Amino acid sequence: MLFDKFQSMVDFRAELAERGVKPFGAVTEEIYSATEGRVEGRDVILAGTNNYLGLSYDPRCIAASQAAAQRWGTGTTGSRVANGSFSEHQALEADIADFYGVDHAIVFSTGYAATSGMCATLAGPGDVILLDGDSHASIYAGVRLSGAEIIRFKHNNPDDLAKRLRRLGERAADALIIVEGIYSMLGDVAPLQEIAAAKREFGGYLFVDEAHSMGVLGETGRGAAQAAGIEDDVDFVAGTFSKSLGGIGGFCVSPHAELQAIRFCINAYIFTASSAPSVIASTREALRIIRAEPQLRQRLWDNANRLYSGLAGLGLRVGPSASPVVAVVLEDRERTLACWQALLEAGVYVNMVVPPASPSTYCLLRNSVSAAHTPEQIETMIAAYAALQDAGLLPAPGQA
Amino acid sequence: MLFDKFQSMVDFRAELAERGVKPFGAVTEEIYSATEGRVEGRDVILAGTNNYLGLSYDPRCIAASQAAAQRWGTGTTGSRVANGSFSEHQALEADIADFYGVDHAIVFSTGYAATSGMCATLAGPGDVILLDGDSHASIYAGVRLSGAEIIRFKHNNPDDLAKRLRRLGERAADALIIVEGIYSMLGDVAPLQEIAAAKREFGGYLFVDEAHSMGVLGETGRGAAQAAGIEDDVDFVAGTFSKSLGGIGGFCVSPHAELQAIRFCINAYIFTASSAPSVIASTREALRIIRAEPQLRQRLWDNANRLYSGLAGLGLRVGPSASPVVAVVLEDRERTLACWQALLEAGVYVNMVVPPASPSTYCLLRNSVSAAHTPEQIETMIAAYAALQDAGLLPAPGQA
Repeated sequence: MLFDKFQSMVDFRAELAERGVKPFGAVTEEIYSATEGRVEGRDVILAGTNNYLGLSYDPRCIAASQAAAQRWGTGTTGSRVANGSFSEHQALEADIADFYGVDHAIVFSTGYAATSGMCATLAGPGDVILLDGDSHASIYAGVRLSGAEIIRFKHNNPDDLAKRLRRLGERAADALIIVEGIYSMLGDVAPLQEIAAAKREFGGYLFVDEAHSMGVLGETGRGAAQAAGIEDDVDFVAGTFSKSLGGIGGFCVSPHAELQAIRFCINAYIFTASSAPSVIASTREALRIIRAEPQLRQRLWDNANRLYSGLAGLGLRVGPSASPVVAVVLEDRERTLACWQALLEAGVYVNMVVPPASPSTYCLLRNSVSAAHTPEQIETMIAAYAALQDAGLLPAPGQA
Repeated sequence: MLFDKFQSMVDFRAELAERGVKPFGAVTEEIYSATEGRVEGRDVILAGTNNYLGLSYDPRCIAASQAAAQRWGTGTTGSRVANGSFSEHQALEADIADFYGVDHAIVFSTGYAATSGMCATLAGPGDVILLDGDSHASIYAGVRLSGAEIIRFKHNNPDDLAKRLRRLGERAADALIIVEGIYSMLGDVAPLQEIAAAKREFGGYLFVDEAHSMGVLGETGRGAAQAAGIEDDVDFVAGTFSKSLGGIGGFCVSPHAELQAIRFCINAYIFTASSAPSVIASTREALRIIRAEPQLRQRLWDNANRLYSGLAGLGLRVGPSASPVVAVVLEDRERTLACWQALLEAGVYVNMVVPPASPSTYCLLRNSVSAAHTPEQIETMIAAYAALQDAGLLPAPGQA
């Protein structure tokens, strides 16, 4: 039967329904602010949104969206290569290129399309791709479509990358190396100085997905490559509009002039309707705010450090260092479910991630902080985890 | 070199730049109405937008978009399975399911994600997919990711489909058959009665992509399957929000309850930010208008018939029957380029399509009509083609 392969998901859903727990697709019924809303009937702190700078609910971005809908309508009804290139799409590409200090940028309708489309197109049959084993699903989709030889190296392990590049010999010069700036599940940062050094030694083109690090890391918010001081070694930067920029869409920038021809070879670009003008306009305004207000990044990191120290201080297993994504790692799905539900009931709405979406066999309670969170909200989040320890749902300090 | 494979596109772009012709990605600088704008400095009739019902510039849809941005912000900053399921996303799913008279619907952030995501997930290793050879790039991307055995049958040829189903023997019962309602390049309609008959005889699951036929065909606008009277034979309907509904996004509906579990197995759904609330709201309003105002469909077809008869009457080579997409077929890329540019200069902005985006080796001047076009605009379009004949750029009547 065609549907047999979905039976385990059917069963899992039935189990969740029986328990009355809704960790995937819980419904947000109202948004009160960038950090507060009503979810499944409860007023909650939004503690798992990746809304790093709180810009999804910024009045200036909302006004830009509304003005663009008035002027341009609700959609372009066509792809960028047909009738869907409006002045605003071009202007956003110019803005993004300028932000990164390069000459070439492509804007995509989703972040998934940006990374999958670029990865599917840059390398082809006869080429080699080396990618971090914990890469995002969109990168995996892209490289599988590329037709290139695919080599996975160990997550955040530059030595393993170097070993595999060395083995490629002369082919390394044309290899495509794909990494992310911050990995979304555990919030860990890629060791980009060492990765760039491997590229310099053996050759290759470096592609960095800054989806979770743009607006978050680097002196001007360009991401992990800027923070590591290795931007000159990066050939392609991809990113998203749906995290720090509070909208939806994605981009790729490059110093290589070939990007302008590559654009017309990407099926996910050619055959997708272009973004709604309202989304393009709010994204442009958000990018302007990111550039004008570096203090947002400072507030984000203050919150990130506070949450990370607080949860680590409880003795919980968290990622290797402070990050806007702070994931609590658990071994057991049952317990993770119970904790997620208890947090929701306590007014703290986080993400639950279980295999195969999470790396390895971990289950995660994934928190993400925003510049818009108050210190009090962060303390409430930490207290909610402490209460799970008191209730015996999480190991107490010293027992982890 | 990694970039060698893009050299022919680099060369083609250089050739276009030298000639000053910009057929791909010409910039729309202003929108005056659903059918008029300024493109590359010229006031034009928008004659290639797939804006079939003119709803992208409907004041009611614009107002819905603006109100949603005010209430919900500019984006959800998360996927539907994390924090990105807002009440409005659920409500749109309910609206779409109700429109199709089925119980299950999934909303995606782009149409490309809807078809590629569903096709990548429904069938897997060990399964068989039979798809029309002229299927959309998003369908091809999906089936290539599926891991299933892929069999292409001849475009719109139910006998070829039946022959290939027969050869499958018992495996046919679980095969996934993928077709489109209206094919976007030539505007030709699938022979769905014969395709459904083949499915009934040999077995299989039928998937129909109604991207260009929803809102266009059928008594209530559900598409080609409704027009053919074979909706009971259809297992999955996919479609887009970026044509008749004037927004961006996509959907899949099904009478099969398994769709609700399948949702959580689709990477392009799980790992993509959900649509902006403004887009969801304008799409809901557009769907309401489609249901309330069947006269829009009548106006669309009056215009489609007028354009088709007019261009066929000039002796031009067009598709097999009247359709909202009326493509003029040419053999020669040079001539197609010259015609596209001359049409733009005459104030008629159409799509140019060349291989490999077009089927076979054709070049196309692709027109699409809208309910919002006036009869006078359609006559202007026809006159512009007649002028190309007078100028010797297109064959005169009787010479084609």
